Amino acid sequence: MGERDEHDHSFRLQVPEGDNRERRVCEACGFIDYENPKVVVGAVATWEGRILLCRRAIEPRRGYWTIPAGFLEMHESAAEGAARETREEAGAEIEVRDLLALYEVTGIGQLYLIFRARLCRPTIEAGEESLEVGLFRWDEIPWQELAFPTVLWSLRHHREVEGVDRFPPFTNPGKLER
Amino acid sequence: MGERDEHDHSFRLQVPEGDNRERRVCEACGFIDYENPKVVVGAVATWEGRILLCRRAIEPRRGYWTIPAGFLEMHESAAEGAARETREEAGAEIEVRDLLALYEVTGIGQLYLIFRARLCRPTIEAGEESLEVGLFRWDEIPWQELAFPTVLWSLRHHREVEGVDRFPPFTNPGKLER
Repeated sequence: MGERDEHDHSFRLQVPEGDNRERRVCEACGFIDYENPKVVVGAVATWEGRILLCRRAIEPRRGYWTIPAGFLEMHESAAEGAARETREEAGAEIEVRDLLALYEVTGIGQLYLIFRARLCRPTIEAGEESLEVGLFRWDEIPWQELAFPTVLWSLRHHREVEGVDRFPPFTNPGKLER
Repeated sequence: MGERDEHDHSFRLQVPEGDNRERRVCEACGFIDYENPKVVVGAVATWEGRILLCRRAIEPRRGYWTIPAGFLEMHESAAEGAARETREEAGAEIEVRDLLALYEVTGIGQLYLIFRARLCRPTIEAGEESLEVGLFRWDEIPWQELAFPTVLWSLRHHREVEGVDRFPPFTNPGKLER
Protein backbone atom coordinates (compact mmCIF):
# COMPACT_ATOMS: atom_id res chain seq x y z
CA MET A 1 0.00 0.00 0.00
CA GLY A 2 1.00 3.61 -0.45
CA GLU A 3 2.58 6.01 1.98
CA ARG A 4 -0.27 8.51 1.96
CA ASP A 5 -1.98 9.36 5.19
CA GLU A 6 -4.75 11.72 6.22
CA HIS A 7 -2.61 14.73 5.39
CA ASP A 8 -2.49 13.79 1.75
CA HIS A 9 -6.17 14.52 1.33
CA SER A 10 -6.82 17.88 -0.27
CA PHE A 11 -9.46 19.25 2.06
CA ARG A 12 -11.76 22.17 1.37
CA LEU A 13 -14.47 23.47 3.69
CA GLN A 14 -17.99 23.01 2.41
CA VAL A 15 -21.45 22.13 3.70
CA PRO A 16 -22.37 18.57 2.69
CA GLU A 17 -25.91 17.94 1.44
CA GLY A 18 -28.34 17.55 4.35
CA ASP A 19 -25.88 19.06 6.79
CA ASN A 20 -25.90 22.55 8.27
CA ARG A 21 -22.26 23.27 8.88
CA GLU A 22 -18.98 23.28 7.06
CA ARG A 23 -16.97 20.06 7.04
CA ARG A 24 -13.59 19.28 5.58
CA VAL A 25 -14.32 17.57 2.26
CA CYS A 26 -11.50 16.11 0.16
CA GLU A 27 -11.55 17.59 -3.33
CA ALA A 28 -9.68 14.58 -4.68
CA CYS A 29 -11.82 11.72 -3.37
CA GLY A 30 -14.95 13.26 -1.80
CA PHE A 31 -14.18 11.92 1.67
CA ILE A 32 -16.04 13.90 4.35
CA ASP A 33 -14.01 14.37 7.53
CA TYR A 34 -16.66 14.51 10.25
CA GLU A 35 -14.48 15.75 13.04
CA ASN A 36 -15.99 15.43 16.50
CA PRO A 37 -14.53 15.92 19.95
CA LYS A 38 -12.72 12.93 21.39
CA VAL A 39 -13.25 11.50 24.85
CA VAL A 40 -10.22 11.14 27.11
CA VAL A 41 -10.71 8.76 30.03
CA GLY A 42 -8.50 8.64 33.08
CA ALA A 43 -8.30 7.66 36.73
CA VAL A 44 -7.11 9.03 40.03
CA ALA A 45 -6.19 5.67 41.51
CA THR A 46 -5.08 5.22 45.09
CA TRP A 47 -3.49 2.63 47.34
CA GLU A 48 -3.66 3.36 51.06
CA GLY A 49 -4.03 7.07 50.39
CA ARG A 50 -1.20 7.27 47.90
CA ILE A 51 -1.93 8.37 44.33
CA LEU A 52 -0.70 6.63 41.19
CA LEU A 53 1.20 8.87 38.79
CA CYS A 54 3.13 8.13 35.59
CA ARG A 55 6.05 10.08 34.13
CA ARG A 56 5.37 10.44 30.42
CA ALA A 57 7.73 8.74 27.96
CA ILE A 58 6.01 10.36 24.97
CA GLU A 59 5.25 13.80 23.68
CA PRO A 60 3.54 16.07 24.45
CA ARG A 61 5.06 16.84 27.85
CA ARG A 62 7.57 14.01 27.88
CA GLY A 63 9.20 13.71 31.35
CA TYR A 64 6.24 15.28 33.15
CA TRP A 65 3.85 13.51 35.49
CA THR A 66 0.27 12.55 34.74
CA ILE A 67 -2.54 10.37 35.97
CA PRO A 68 -3.19 7.39 33.66
CA ALA A 69 -5.41 8.65 30.83
CA GLY A 70 -5.95 8.30 27.11
CA PHE A 71 -8.47 8.26 24.29
CA LEU A 72 -11.59 6.18 24.74
CA GLU A 73 -11.71 3.41 22.15
CA MET A 74 -14.70 1.93 20.36
CA HIS A 75 -16.70 -0.78 22.15
CA GLU A 76 -15.47 -0.04 25.65
CA SER A 77 -17.19 1.87 28.42
CA ALA A 78 -15.51 4.96 29.84
CA ALA A 79 -14.69 3.07 33.06
CA GLU A 80 -13.24 0.18 31.06
CA GLY A 81 -11.15 2.65 29.10
CA ALA A 82 -9.78 4.22 32.27
CA ALA A 83 -8.87 0.75 33.57
CA ARG A 84 -7.23 -0.14 30.25
CA GLU A 85 -5.13 3.04 30.23
CA THR A 86 -4.05 2.37 33.81
CA ARG A 87 -3.05 -1.16 32.82
CA GLU A 88 -1.15 0.05 29.72
CA GLU A 89 0.64 2.99 31.30
CA ALA A 90 1.22 1.76 34.85
CA GLY A 91 0.84 -2.04 34.76
CA ALA A 92 -1.80 -1.69 37.44
CA GLU A 93 -5.26 -3.12 37.97
CA ILE A 94 -7.94 -0.80 39.32
CA GLU A 95 -11.48 -0.93 40.53
CA VAL A 96 -13.31 2.14 39.27
CA ARG A 97 -15.45 3.81 41.96
CA ASP A 98 -17.27 6.82 40.51
CA LEU A 99 -17.05 9.78 38.16
CA LEU A 100 -14.82 12.45 39.68
CA ALA A 101 -14.92 15.06 36.94
CA LEU A 102 -15.97 16.06 33.48
CA TYR A 103 -13.46 18.55 32.07
CA GLU A 104 -13.68 20.12 28.65
CA VAL A 105 -10.82 21.48 26.59
CA THR A 106 -12.96 22.79 23.76
CA GLY A 107 -10.09 24.47 21.92
CA ILE A 108 -8.67 21.09 20.99
CA GLY A 109 -11.93 19.15 21.06
CA GLN A 110 -11.23 17.02 24.10
CA LEU A 111 -13.72 15.97 26.74
CA TYR A 112 -12.25 14.34 29.86
CA LEU A 113 -14.01 11.80 32.02
CA ILE A 114 -11.91 11.25 35.14
CA PHE A 115 -12.84 8.50 37.58
CA ARG A 116 -11.96 7.78 41.18
CA ALA A 117 -10.46 4.33 41.49
CA ARG A 118 -8.78 1.95 43.91
CA LEU A 119 -5.73 -0.08 43.01
CA CYS A 120 -6.51 -3.77 43.43
CA ARG A 121 -2.95 -4.32 44.68
CA PRO A 122 0.13 -2.10 44.97
CA THR A 123 1.82 -3.73 41.97
CA ILE A 124 2.77 -1.08 39.42
CA GLU A 125 5.20 -1.08 36.50
CA ALA A 126 6.01 1.51 33.84
CA GLY A 127 4.41 0.66 30.49
CA GLU A 128 5.73 1.67 27.07
CA GLU A 129 4.35 5.20 27.37
CA SER A 130 5.82 5.80 30.84
CA LEU A 131 9.39 6.47 31.98
CA GLU A 132 8.52 5.56 35.55
CA VAL A 133 5.48 5.20 37.78
CA GLY A 134 5.00 5.87 41.45
CA LEU A 135 2.58 6.05 44.37
CA PHE A 136 2.65 9.49 45.96
CA ARG A 137 1.44 10.86 49.24
CA TRP A 138 -0.18 14.31 48.87
CA ASP A 139 2.94 16.18 50.00
CA GLU A 140 5.17 14.08 47.73
CA ILE A 141 3.33 14.90 44.50
CA PRO A 142 5.67 16.61 42.00
CA TRP A 143 3.43 19.69 41.70
CA GLN A 144 5.91 21.62 39.58
CA GLU A 145 6.24 18.80 37.09
CA LEU A 146 2.62 17.94 36.27
CA ALA A 147 1.98 17.42 32.57
CA PHE A 148 -1.37 19.16 32.07
CA PRO A 149 -3.81 21.46 33.89
CA THR A 150 -6.36 18.62 33.89
CA VAL A 151 -3.94 16.57 36.03
CA LEU A 152 -3.71 19.36 38.60
CA TRP A 153 -7.49 19.79 38.59
CA SER A 154 -8.03 16.05 39.00
CA LEU A 155 -5.71 15.84 42.00
CA ARG A 156 -7.22 18.88 43.73
CA HIS A 157 -10.79 17.78 43.11
CA HIS A 158 -9.99 14.27 44.26
CA ARG A 159 -8.71 15.75 47.51
CA GLU A 160 -11.92 17.78 47.93
CA VAL A 161 -14.13 14.69 48.00
CA GLU A 162 -12.02 12.49 50.23
CA GLY A 163 -14.50 10.68 52.44
CA VAL A 164 -17.46 11.89 50.37
CA ASP A 165 -19.55 9.17 48.76
CA ARG A 166 -21.99 10.91 46.45
CA PHE A 167 -21.31 14.16 44.62
CA PRO A 168 -21.90 15.75 41.22
CA PRO A 169 -18.79 15.52 39.03
CA PHE A 170 -16.46 18.49 39.07
CA THR A 171 -16.03 20.62 35.95
CA ASN A 172 -13.29 22.99 34.78
CA PRO A 173 -12.31 25.31 37.61
CA GLY A 174 -12.84 29.03 37.04
CA LYS A 175 -10.05 31.11 35.55
CA LEU A 176 -8.85 32.28 38.94
CA GLU A 177 -8.39 28.75 40.20
CA ARG A 178 -6.16 27.63 37.35
CA MET B 1 -15.05 17.01 -7.24
CA GLY B 2 -15.78 13.31 -7.41
CA GLU B 3 -18.68 11.35 -5.99
CA ARG B 4 -16.58 9.19 -3.71
CA ASP B 5 -17.25 9.22 -0.02
CA GLU B 6 -15.84 7.35 2.96
CA HIS B 7 -17.26 4.08 1.68
CA ASP B 8 -15.09 4.22 -1.40
CA HIS B 9 -11.96 3.73 0.64
CA SER B 10 -10.70 0.18 0.53
CA PHE B 11 -10.11 -0.46 4.21
CA ARG B 12 -8.08 -3.29 5.70
CA LEU B 13 -7.43 -3.85 9.40
CA GLN B 14 -3.82 -3.41 10.46
CA VAL B 15 -1.81 -2.01 13.36
CA PRO B 16 -0.21 1.30 12.37
CA GLU B 17 3.38 1.92 13.44
CA GLY B 18 3.58 3.11 17.06
CA ASP B 19 0.05 1.99 17.76
CA ASN B 20 -1.09 -1.09 19.66
CA ARG B 21 -4.38 -1.95 18.06
CA GLU B 22 -5.88 -2.57 14.67
CA ARG B 23 -7.23 0.38 12.74
CA ARG B 24 -8.98 0.58 9.40
CA VAL B 25 -6.28 1.58 6.94
CA CYS B 26 -7.12 2.32 3.31
CA GLU B 27 -5.08 0.14 0.97
CA ALA B 28 -5.55 2.63 -1.83
CA CYS B 29 -4.44 5.86 -0.17
CA GLY B 30 -3.01 4.93 3.27
CA PHE B 31 -5.62 6.94 5.17
CA ILE B 32 -5.90 5.74 8.79
CA ASP B 33 -9.44 5.81 10.09
CA TYR B 34 -9.00 6.47 13.81
CA GLU B 35 -12.51 5.69 14.88
CA ASN B 36 -13.42 6.83 18.38
CA PRO B 37 -16.72 6.95 20.21
CA LYS B 38 -18.81 10.02 19.61
CA VAL B 39 -20.42 12.16 22.25
CA VAL B 40 -24.16 12.75 22.04
CA VAL B 41 -25.41 15.71 24.08
CA GLY B 42 -29.02 16.29 25.01
CA ALA B 43 -31.35 17.96 27.47
CA VAL B 44 -34.42 17.20 29.50
CA ALA B 45 -35.82 20.71 29.40
CA THR B 46 -38.86 21.79 31.33
CA TRP B 47 -41.30 24.68 31.55
CA GLU B 48 -43.53 24.71 34.62
CA GLY B 49 -43.09 20.98 35.09
CA ARG B 50 -43.79 20.08 31.48
CA ILE B 51 -41.09 18.35 29.45
CA LEU B 52 -39.99 19.34 25.94
CA LEU B 53 -40.15 16.52 23.39
CA CYS B 54 -39.64 16.48 19.63
CA ARG B 55 -41.16 14.08 17.10
CA ARG B 56 -38.38 13.03 14.77
CA ALA B 57 -38.59 14.03 11.10
CA ILE B 58 -35.51 11.97 10.22
CA GLU B 59 -34.36 8.38 10.39
CA PRO B 60 -33.66 6.45 12.48
CA ARG B 61 -37.00 6.28 14.28
CA ARG B 62 -38.81 8.88 12.18
CA GLY B 63 -42.17 9.74 13.76
CA TYR B 64 -41.08 8.80 17.28
CA TRP B 65 -40.51 11.16 20.17
CA THR B 66 -37.18 12.20 21.63
CA ILE B 67 -35.59 14.77 23.86
CA PRO B 68 -33.44 17.26 21.92
CA ALA B 69 -30.05 15.60 21.39
CA GLY B 70 -27.31 15.25 18.84
CA PHE B 71 -23.60 14.88 18.23
CA LEU B 72 -21.28 17.23 20.09
CA GLU B 73 -19.40 19.42 17.62
CA MET B 74 -15.84 20.71 17.81
CA HIS B 75 -15.18 23.84 19.86
CA GLU B 76 -18.35 23.76 21.92
CA SER B 77 -18.86 22.56 25.46
CA ALA B 78 -21.28 19.72 26.13
CA ALA B 79 -23.75 22.16 27.71
CA GLU B 80 -23.45 24.49 24.71
CA GLY B 81 -24.06 21.52 22.42
CA ALA B 82 -27.20 20.53 24.30
CA ALA B 83 -28.47 24.11 24.04
CA ARG B 84 -27.66 24.21 20.30
CA GLU B 85 -29.49 20.95 19.64
CA THR B 86 -32.52 22.26 21.56
CA ARG B 87 -32.43 25.43 19.46
CA GLU B 88 -32.09 23.50 16.19
CA GLU B 89 -34.69 20.82 16.87
CA ALA B 90 -37.25 22.70 18.96
CA GLY B 91 -36.62 26.41 18.37
CA ALA B 92 -36.21 26.79 22.12
CA GLU B 93 -33.74 28.55 24.38
CA ILE B 94 -32.64 26.73 27.51
CA GLU B 95 -30.60 27.35 30.59
CA VAL B 96 -28.62 24.22 31.39
CA ARG B 97 -28.71 23.27 35.09
CA ASP B 98 -26.62 20.17 35.70
CA LEU B 99 -25.55 16.79 34.38
CA LEU B 100 -28.41 14.32 34.70
CA ALA B 101 -26.83 11.23 33.20
CA LEU B 102 -23.94 9.62 31.42
CA TYR B 103 -25.21 6.74 29.30
CA GLU B 104 -23.04 4.53 27.14
CA VAL B 105 -24.10 2.59 24.09
CA THR B 106 -20.77 0.90 23.52
CA GLY B 107 -22.02 -1.33 20.68
CA ILE B 108 -22.31 1.69 18.42
CA GLY B 109 -19.67 3.83 20.10
CA GLN B 110 -21.93 6.48 21.55
CA LEU B 111 -21.54 8.21 24.89
CA TYR B 112 -24.51 10.32 26.01
CA LEU B 113 -24.27 13.37 28.25
CA ILE B 114 -27.80 14.38 29.19
CA PHE B 115 -28.39 17.62 31.08
CA ARG B 116 -31.25 18.99 33.13
CA ALA B 117 -32.37 22.33 31.76
CA ARG B 118 -35.01 25.02 32.09
CA LEU B 119 -36.69 26.61 29.10
CA CYS B 120 -36.08 30.37 29.18
CA ARG B 121 -39.60 30.90 27.80
CA PRO B 122 -42.34 28.57 26.56
CA THR B 123 -41.70 29.45 22.92
CA ILE B 124 -41.07 26.27 20.91
CA GLU B 125 -41.17 25.51 17.19
CA ALA B 126 -40.35 22.40 15.18
CA GLY B 127 -36.97 22.68 13.45
CA GLU B 128 -35.96 20.89 10.24
CA GLU B 129 -35.33 17.61 12.03
CA SER B 130 -38.65 17.62 13.89
CA LEU B 131 -42.21 16.94 12.67
CA GLU B 132 -43.65 18.60 15.74
CA VAL B 133 -42.62 19.63 19.24
CA GLY B 134 -44.56 19.73 22.48
CA LEU B 135 -44.49 20.31 26.22
CA PHE B 136 -45.76 17.26 28.08
CA ARG B 137 -46.93 16.66 31.60
CA TRP B 138 -45.69 13.33 33.01
CA ASP B 139 -48.95 11.51 32.30
CA GLU B 140 -49.15 12.96 28.79
CA ILE B 141 -45.78 11.63 27.64
CA PRO B 142 -46.19 9.29 24.63
CA TRP B 143 -44.46 6.40 26.38
CA GLN B 144 -45.23 3.91 23.64
CA GLU B 145 -43.76 6.15 20.97
CA LEU B 146 -40.36 7.08 22.42
CA ALA B 147 -37.53 6.88 19.89
CA PHE B 148 -34.72 5.30 21.93
CA PRO B 149 -34.10 3.59 25.28
CA THR B 150 -31.92 6.54 26.29
CA VAL B 151 -34.97 8.81 26.02
CA LEU B 152 -36.94 6.58 28.38
CA TRP B 153 -34.01 6.41 30.80
CA SER B 154 -33.57 10.20 30.71
CA LEU B 155 -37.22 10.84 31.50
CA ARG B 156 -37.32 8.33 34.36
CA HIS B 157 -34.05 9.52 35.87
CA HIS B 158 -35.15 13.13 35.56
CA ARG B 159 -38.26 12.25 37.54
CA GLU B 160 -36.15 10.57 40.24
CA VAL B 161 -34.26 13.75 41.05
CA GLU B 162 -37.12 16.21 41.00
CA GLY B 163 -36.41 18.59 43.85
CA VAL B 164 -32.89 17.21 44.34
CA ASP B 165 -30.08 19.68 43.87
CA ARG B 166 -26.87 17.70 43.98
CA PHE B 167 -26.49 14.10 42.81
CA PRO B 168 -24.06 11.91 40.91
CA PRO B 169 -25.11 11.47 37.27
CA PHE B 170 -27.17 8.41 36.45
CA THR B 171 -25.73 5.68 34.25
CA ASN B 172 -27.31 2.93 32.13
CA PRO B 173 -29.99 1.17 34.14
CA GLY B 174 -29.48 -2.54 34.79
CA LYS B 175 -30.84 -5.07 32.31
CA LEU B 176 -34.00 -5.62 34.34
CA GLU B 177 -34.88 -1.94 34.30
CA ARG B 178 -34.72 -1.55 30.52
